[in-house]
Amino acid sequence: MQLQSYAQGQWVTGNGEPVTLLSAISGKPVATINSDGLDFAGIANYARSIGGPALRELTFHQRAMKLKQLALYLNERKEIFYALSRETGATRSDSWIDIEGGIATLFSFSGKGRREMPNGHVYLDGQPEVLSRKGSFIGQHVYLPLEGVAVHINAFNFPCWGMLEKIAPTLIAGVPVIVKPASQSAYLTELMFRHMIESGIFPEGSLQLICGGVGNLLDNLGCQDAVTFTGSATTGLKLRQHPNLMQNSVRFTMEADSLNASILGPDAGPGTPEFDLYVKEVVREMTTKAGQRCTCIRRAIVPRHYATDVIDAIKARLMKVVVGDPQNEGVTMGALASHDQCIEVAERIGQLSETCELVYDGVDQPGMDQLPSDGAYFAPRLLYCDRPLENTGVHDIEAFGPVSTVIPYESNEQAIKLARLGQGSLVSSIFTYDDEFARQMVIGIGAWHGRILIGNRDCGKESTGHGSALPTLIHGGPGRAGGGQEMGGVRGILHYMQAIALQGSPTTLTRITDCWIEGASRLESEVHPFRKKLTELRIGDSITTGKRKITLEDIEHFAEFSGDKFYAHMDQEAASANPFFEGRVAHGYFIVSAAAGLFVDPAPGPVLANYGLENLRFLTPVNPDDEIQVEFTCKQKIPRENEDYGEVRWDTHVYNQNRELVARYDVLTMVEK
Amino acid sequence: MQLQSYAQGQWVTGNGEPVTLLSAISGKPVATINSDGLDFAGIANYARSIGGPALRELTFHQRAMKLKQLALYLNERKEIFYALSRETGATRSDSWIDIEGGIATLFSFSGKGRREMPNGHVYLDGQPEVLSRKGSFIGQHVYLPLEGVAVHINAFNFPCWGMLEKIAPTLIAGVPVIVKPASQSAYLTELMFRHMIESGIFPEGSLQLICGGVGNLLDNLGCQDAVTFTGSATTGLKLRQHPNLMQNSVRFTMEADSLNASILGPDAGPGTPEFDLYVKEVVREMTTKAGQRCTCIRRAIVPRHYATDVIDAIKARLMKVVVGDPQNEGVTMGALASHDQCIEVAERIGQLSETCELVYDGVDQPGMDQLPSDGAYFAPRLLYCDRPLENTGVHDIEAFGPVSTVIPYESNEQAIKLARLGQGSLVSSIFTYDDEFARQMVIGIGAWHGRILIGNRDCGKESTGHGSALPTLIHGGPGRAGGGQEMGGVRGILHYMQAIALQGSPTTLTRITDCWIEGASRLESEVHPFRKKLTELRIGDSITTGKRKITLEDIEHFAEFSGDKFYAHMDQEAASANPFFEGRVAHGYFIVSAAAGLFVDPAPGPVLANYGLENLRFLTPVNPDDEIQVEFTCKQKIPRENEDYGEVRWDTHVYNQNRELVARYDVLTMVEK
Repeated sequence: MQLQSYAQGQWVTGNGEPVTLLSAISGKPVATINSDGLDFAGIANYARSIGGPALRELTFHQRAMKLKQLALYLNERKEIFYALSRETGATRSDSWIDIEGGIATLFSFSGKGRREMPNGHVYLDGQPEVLSRKGSFIGQHVYLPLEGVAVHINAFNFPCWGMLEKIAPTLIAGVPVIVKPASQSAYLTELMFRHMIESGIFPEGSLQLICGGVGNLLDNLGCQDAVTFTGSATTGLKLRQHPNLMQNSVRFTMEADSLNASILGPDAGPGTPEFDLYVKEVVREMTTKAGQRCTCIRRAIVPRHYATDVIDAIKARLMKVVVGDPQNEGVTMGALASHDQCIEVAERIGQLSETCELVYDGVDQPGMDQLPSDGAYFAPRLLYCDRPLENTGVHDIEAFGPVSTVIPYESNEQAIKLARLGQGSLVSSIFTYDDEFARQMVIGIGAWHGRILIGNRDCGKESTGHGSALPTLIHGGPGRAGGGQEMGGVRGILHYMQAIALQGSPTTLTRITDCWIEGASRLESEVHPFRKKLTELRIGDSITTGKRKITLEDIEHFAEFSGDKFYAHMDQEAASANPFFEGRVAHGYFIVSAAAGLFVDPAPGPVLANYGLENLRFLTPVNPDDEIQVEFTCKQKIPRENEDYGEVRWDTHVYNQNRELVARYDVLTMVEK
Repeated sequence: MQLQSYAQGQWVTGNGEPVTLLSAISGKPVATINSDGLDFAGIANYARSIGGPALRELTFHQRAMKLKQLALYLNERKEIFYALSRETGATRSDSWIDIEGGIATLFSFSGKGRREMPNGHVYLDGQPEVLSRKGSFIGQHVYLPLEGVAVHINAFNFPCWGMLEKIAPTLIAGVPVIVKPASQSAYLTELMFRHMIESGIFPEGSLQLICGGVGNLLDNLGCQDAVTFTGSATTGLKLRQHPNLMQNSVRFTMEADSLNASILGPDAGPGTPEFDLYVKEVVREMTTKAGQRCTCIRRAIVPRHYATDVIDAIKARLMKVVVGDPQNEGVTMGALASHDQCIEVAERIGQLSETCELVYDGVDQPGMDQLPSDGAYFAPRLLYCDRPLENTGVHDIEAFGPVSTVIPYESNEQAIKLARLGQGSLVSSIFTYDDEFARQMVIGIGAWHGRILIGNRDCGKESTGHGSALPTLIHGGPGRAGGGQEMGGVRGILHYMQAIALQGSPTTLTRITDCWIEGASRLESEVHPFRKKLTELRIGDSITTGKRKITLEDIEHFAEFSGDKFYAHMDQEAASANPFFEGRVAHGYFIVSAAAGLFVDPAPGPVLANYGLENLRFLTPVNPDDEIQVEFTCKQKIPRENEDYGEVRWDTHVYNQNRELVARYDVLTMVEK
């Protein structure tokens, strides 16, 4: 099988010497790869000129819906990917992380995009900023999609997930992608990519694939493009220093392996649920994907007096690990990606052994002697570093396989110091049932990490585990981990967009953002806006209601009826003593109820329900005999792609007879299209 | 005057050959500068070991209060700075931007820090993420301060503002700073810095100053440190490529000059207010600070048929500019920073002239011949580029002085194309009274910009102007502008903090974040939490209220009393036809009113007022005879530093008799300490 690239709308083959990719299981050739001769500048331009405009025609929700369709499409075909995934050395459960974990990431981003972004083209960030006394000049931060292309350079360990977790936020942002998988497992990426193209779900030009080297692609990127990299720190550093990326401030995100620590709390000795959870977690991290995860636990930092117990418990579990062909029943750990990886990991263990003791050597465990020699199998190894403050190799040398080191600590300060010696990690975990210890650790090591998991008996059953990067949480850490950040829901989408501070009049900014901003023109009409369907409503459609006088009798009546007899409503003297009031005041809840009485148009119509309220502030107290009046304005519309209705947000301003602002809030309704 | 550095708690002088700094006005020596022999590694360590821990002891609000104190302190002494500022060539109004604009930035960040951040040590980002079915395992993003030092490398044009806009967010974050001003105007930075140290407001080690080169400082930075740079793209590129910064993923933010465009709309011909605003703005941008601002309008993009009118109008205004010693009455434009700058700007104009026509040469304007030859005076120049799509020099060559080029366009697409040719800018402006044109331009050029101002007759009077970077808005742009981002309120503070995704049980995360998270333990107590002062209240203090049955009579009564007779409350048949309801439902406003009746403890006590409500969602309709009950829990406390009270946020869950969630929201109250 000769892997192809998908470039400028066609499947093409490189014209150079093909490189043969071997199965991790059998050592036999699976495919060849080469991308020489591709028109890399043309690929980038094709994305920018064909894919980008087509994607940007769609709204955030439309792109999110396509992502969901893609997830469904791939999910139906998942067994095709599982079948080939075996060649990478992955067990069924390893492949589950890669294939179904990747598809789940598409679903997650699709949901976030539809729930947390508008169904339009401009993403609003934060509230308007008042920049002038009279309010005629204001600011509003927005995000617009980059008009270039995102180049995603992936690692060999997750050929599906690695691609999907990166394209999901990029496509929702409205930016086309060029996927460049690591060669070793590119055959699986290519297979899944073929199905993605076949599905025809995303517009032509949105998705391109390079199987092989990227040639002069990076020389052809500019300020609207972005490069993401997942892999080794050495390669990442080389890419980061690329002169053209530097020169043009091309966005570059890096996610490198790190020496992630997991800390056992002093309370979590043998016999506690946390001790058991810890041991299980360390072994799971060592053996899942044969320890080839950038988030793996490499350093098990434990109280010195429990070190032997921890080592013994880990050993007992490791002995039960069955290494072998994932196809064979009972196998719980697969192979490394290649023979080269086996050599590399063995070398690193050799380096670590200069200052660490090898306390478990899995070469003798059951089944190891029967493995076919052509597969890239590697037995799990556990090390122990007795003097981890003097010997820093353990904090610096990474064996990217089923290898971990137990490291003892003697005080909380020491545990913090040891974790920090990793010089920046993707993730740490802390196993403790002492929340104060957890708090101290998080404060102590937090700034060195992108993610921290606290495991205990309360959450152990439902925990997704130390090593799992989740689509709703950020992934990436400082320093050695590359300093990048991916995913994290909408945060990850914004990486492919440009933040812009808009300044101007409220009316102008309302027009640009499709969200009514205080001070903008209001479109008073004869028809009550509750009579308008979602499609008919215009941003700014507005009514000014009649007035209602709030009497002392009203306040007493409301207190009696609601049961809320707070003294500020009931007792003139006590209310006057309150620093915020000059006497008895109306209930805030009464104000919003009476306001609804003023703005609601009662007969059946397009407005279906009030499903919530946001950002309510009571600004001026209402005293007996004050008169209130409401300005009620259509602020934002979010039509749903797959329903007959959508959300409409109404700006609500309640004034008193002196035109002082009594209350301000957003009313959230569902309105028929 | 020999400038000193403030290093490791002492004022010190470099031991190398001092460089003499000349006055921009008189050409006479103002000071000498040198930092040779300083212990740069020691300076960085001092910040990390002395300044950082002292700052992190304080809460966000305490640091913000100190910033306000500093602003007040400097404001009282502002005339001292004005006096010396003249030597930089600045007029009084130029100095106002630098000195009072800088101080205003401190005030602004102080306000943002207190209004938008908690009064604690952990900043929460977004809502908790549900990561498990039963809710025992959740996620929450937080930010913690970096534990290193921020090195701020500033440009010569704003010796005060440049320092203050960078230290404000850094100090609120809790990170110590090393300020390195550009040599040319370092005497003014040093003067202000002396007063900052003298004030004793910030803890020792928070603030250090290097007057002169930074030696091997950058070689001594790691993953907890940050470098920001404002200045020329060439120097910025050199710094960005620094091997140690690359190797350790040290945060690097760059803000470089760019060829900012201002676009005149096709509607804004001569005689319109927008035309006048435009001409005024271009001239103001050319002459303020003698055009030495990285945000200046360098390219005036105008409809071709108005080009002559624009040029004539700009010329007419330029002729009235009086260049000279800012001390002399009537002078409206000062000098460039130095003679070297004059030579540099003249060279650039020469390069531009190869493809542009010089249409205004201010050397002949009144007063130019009487200027003392030792000052760095430079007459304003206006150029015209007739073929701006073929001749790209105008989009690439920056004359950092009172120089601008008029560029004609023939269609909206062309205007967009021309603006983009700047390859990434800090800011653009659009002058138009046609909001649809404004919208198209923003969509078209947005991704190339960090800020876009739309000027028109509605906001013209209150506009802060094209060139003004404001503390509440982000500052920085893509590509040529350096790809960095500064300020923008809390956004700017977070640049000096690490984002961390926390995972664990709700109870554990509540302990770490000081904010009660759904699912966490509730501390039911005999005393109603309304009886507890702010200092006595514990996060999680909770009551479960009695129950109230909601009858049909209640609903009708509420409708009558509030006036809200929406059909879903009143008409069984119509309500049943609504897709969300099965019959008549209680008003949402009634639910929250009745809930208050259940949870409020009425007698006078520490709770002073309900000032608002947030994130209210109605989740299950309440039908007649349903029974509601409330769980009311202390969620977050924000004690105010300078008041006897603070905000307390209460999590409110309303359930029905089947334990279905009816409504969920946060009640906001003021509570006495």
